[in-house]
Amino acid sequence: MATATRSAVWGLMSAVSAAGARCPCHAPAVSKVLKRHAPGCSNHSHEHRHEHQHRHKATAAGKEDADYAFEMATSTIRYGKGVTREVGMDVANLKSKKAVVFTDSNVAKLYPVQTVIQSLEKAGVNYVVYDRVRVEPTDGSFMDAINFVRKEKPDTFIAVGGGSVIDTAKAANLYLCHPEEDFLAFVNAPIGRGKPVYNSVKPLIAVPTTAGTGSETTGVAIFDYKPQNFKTGIAHRSLKPFLGIVDPLNTRTMPPQVHVASGLDVLCHSLESYTAIPYNERTPRPENPILRPAYQGSNPISDMWSIKALKMCIDNLPRAYKNAEDHLAQEQMILASTFAGIGFGNAGVHLCHGMSYPIAGGVKNYKHPGYNVDHKIVPHGISVAVTSPAVFKWTAPACPERHLEAAALFGADITNAKLADAGPILSDALRKFLHKLDVPNGISALGYTKDDTKMLVEGTLPQHRVTKMSPRPVDYEVIERLVENSWTMY
Amino acid sequence: MATATRSAVWGLMSAVSAAGARCPCHAPAVSKVLKRHAPGCSNHSHEHRHEHQHRHKATAAGKEDADYAFEMATSTIRYGKGVTREVGMDVANLKSKKAVVFTDSNVAKLYPVQTVIQSLEKAGVNYVVYDRVRVEPTDGSFMDAINFVRKEKPDTFIAVGGGSVIDTAKAANLYLCHPEEDFLAFVNAPIGRGKPVYNSVKPLIAVPTTAGTGSETTGVAIFDYKPQNFKTGIAHRSLKPFLGIVDPLNTRTMPPQVHVASGLDVLCHSLESYTAIPYNERTPRPENPILRPAYQGSNPISDMWSIKALKMCIDNLPRAYKNAEDHLAQEQMILASTFAGIGFGNAGVHLCHGMSYPIAGGVKNYKHPGYNVDHKIVPHGISVAVTSPAVFKWTAPACPERHLEAAALFGADITNAKLADAGPILSDALRKFLHKLDVPNGISALGYTKDDTKMLVEGTLPQHRVTKMSPRPVDYEVIERLVENSWTMY
Repeated sequence: MATATRSAVWGLMSAVSAAGARCPCHAPAVSKVLKRHAPGCSNHSHEHRHEHQHRHKATAAGKEDADYAFEMATSTIRYGKGVTREVGMDVANLKSKKAVVFTDSNVAKLYPVQTVIQSLEKAGVNYVVYDRVRVEPTDGSFMDAINFVRKEKPDTFIAVGGGSVIDTAKAANLYLCHPEEDFLAFVNAPIGRGKPVYNSVKPLIAVPTTAGTGSETTGVAIFDYKPQNFKTGIAHRSLKPFLGIVDPLNTRTMPPQVHVASGLDVLCHSLESYTAIPYNERTPRPENPILRPAYQGSNPISDMWSIKALKMCIDNLPRAYKNAEDHLAQEQMILASTFAGIGFGNAGVHLCHGMSYPIAGGVKNYKHPGYNVDHKIVPHGISVAVTSPAVFKWTAPACPERHLEAAALFGADITNAKLADAGPILSDALRKFLHKLDVPNGISALGYTKDDTKMLVEGTLPQHRVTKMSPRPVDYEVIERLVENSWTMY
Repeated sequence: MATATRSAVWGLMSAVSAAGARCPCHAPAVSKVLKRHAPGCSNHSHEHRHEHQHRHKATAAGKEDADYAFEMATSTIRYGKGVTREVGMDVANLKSKKAVVFTDSNVAKLYPVQTVIQSLEKAGVNYVVYDRVRVEPTDGSFMDAINFVRKEKPDTFIAVGGGSVIDTAKAANLYLCHPEEDFLAFVNAPIGRGKPVYNSVKPLIAVPTTAGTGSETTGVAIFDYKPQNFKTGIAHRSLKPFLGIVDPLNTRTMPPQVHVASGLDVLCHSLESYTAIPYNERTPRPENPILRPAYQGSNPISDMWSIKALKMCIDNLPRAYKNAEDHLAQEQMILASTFAGIGFGNAGVHLCHGMSYPIAGGVKNYKHPGYNVDHKIVPHGISVAVTSPAVFKWTAPACPERHLEAAALFGADITNAKLADAGPILSDALRKFLHKLDVPNGISALGYTKDDTKMLVEGTLPQHRVTKMSPRPVDYEVIERLVENSWTMY
């Protein structure tokens, strides 16, 4: 991005910031398009966020049942080139009697798992390996892993792989430590019963090998729920790994298409969390702090992580895709995935993720290039990215400055942009960015026909955990329109 | 800061970033003043940091015993106006049988402690109160607290107060859980024996009532070591609180001078951690990850928090000081103290803090206004601030861009600034800032005479934990010169 454009962003942010002093909330007339302060505005908290007139009344009066606090929790993160080789000492430091290494059959053959195994051997750790993780796991594959650990009874988990591996390890750990519970007990309501986790879980050390999910920082585990053919998850702060080992050497084995698909997950984590409903507009306010969800809405801490991750992703993902030898870009991408993980892990994601669950879960005859699996697959990152131009065009009116700020990071010229144009400008910037990364041309390119619209809408609506994080409330018609507008992107 | 100045920073940063492509490391000749990439440069990691020629050789070759990784750990943070009232439920959620509330005799009478007590009562928690914390604690006052908890045997700690209270609670918790150890066992070497913490400690919930130490996020506890009349500390990741409850309502009772003194601690935390030696130049590389210190040097994660906290502090501290009713500025300051805590808690601080320990510990006849205590006192924040103009003037050559970037945040015009001028420019900006806050005019204004120089130098040199974080190596002569240059500031 040129310096001129950068100045324009800062100029805009300063203008927005200055405008805050003439807060329309406190003026006799409420202006039509109200403002949300940009993050550069340090003197006005989220409480001074302003919305479209139709939402303003509740905000200005303070929604009675809205939350008033947020909580940021994150795994301890260790970053360094080659730092995977320390994991054996970590497990030994935990005085482990029996560890389990989770991975999938592809990663099992590669450098990251080999390094972990060597390190465990060197530290004299007793361990077993579970390498049957399914890429894009299902309730069935989760159960296979759960049954494995219920039999083996490890006291320490090590997950080496992408989000699928780390998420499977989280689920296995959870159900190992709650032997009385059936599978749906902890699955997000309304699909499962969404019980709070009540026993402590075993320490999990997560070693990501993709620059995508940020699962090493979060308490979230996602899977395809086969009875209904869409994805859902288990989310609880206590599931977050004890330690995330972020080693840029571990992503060098990713094929280019996996760089893109996992990197687009980072992109959407950061953009969705940055534009999520503010924490102090989320309802209901919990009666006990233990009930405050992991996904709480955007807040001053998640904002820092999200916007930084977005910038890193925009600058580095195209480079990591085009040139397998661009190790500097790859290093920035794995760091970005961790940053975005901390951001969205506390703020939440919204509609791209909500809509992605039926898109990925309902896959019929599409298999993405670069994925060496024995089943059809829409990679998670692709399933989130294909709706992003439509989603952010629609969410922009809720917080147009943030959408414009994001557009400027993509390189869009926002010098004379009006707030009302934020949606189309960001949407166009996203389209250009995705096109350069050879992302398939919308939902229709993933094997769906118009007959699937109902399924795609109905698979999104129950994803309350994320749809509630949208900065504008959604219903059937809204999601239907977003599906239609995502049919093709280019 | 005007937009024009802001653009200048970004322009400079872009220029620095672009220059990275012509990395002098890889050119035949090594230029005299080498560059450290600005944080806006996302494509070059700390590994591409460049130093003055005399340090360059080791860096370019990769210091053989330098670390190659960093670890970020932070307490869970809950932020919200009025969120203190949730603490009773938190303690009950921990299934506590007996909690202890730590505070000092002043704060004990004020809103924050009253709110905590009400909340504990409402939740039916069994608790005792320890209100004998000394402001600027000593080994003696730590021991008093340790003896109290060894007798009362609480299972949960709640610390309500400034850094003195939170630090005292950390020390009491540590020694309660290590009943066999004498006091010097865990104190930083070479003053104490610096043993690693080997037992787990009880959960500590920290409720800061000043916007200063960021102690709610860190594993550090500082005290005056009376036998040698300077401050030292205990630092271990495992001492970090289980939860930090950051409630802006709790700082409303601070007198203006306490706003300033605690806010200057935030200022120095952020500036020192941002300019600390990079993590991958710190030696030695630990043999076991458990030995990696909490203070690891600047890194891509701490940088984010430090620079943001600095900006918030510059924008809001003068407002919080001048106008007790400026609640927005106060809210930003307590958030800034937490942000700076996350930054320095992982990166470390260096010379302002190192030199502050004898300045505060050796106090003879100075009592700072606004402090209601029965002993002489140089508040911690004052003791760190008085050397800052001299310190940053001297550290600037190690990473001049970062010093210029900081100066620009203070409002300095860096449009045509040369890297060689970074030190004087930042130093002048600091002086102006401190003068407006009525900070005493240097070390001489705190009751010291030139005869004390030797004591001030000798009290700094053993503070290895922090002096090793200096971006330039120090010795007796360097510290002596910094003391002399801090004699007066204005």
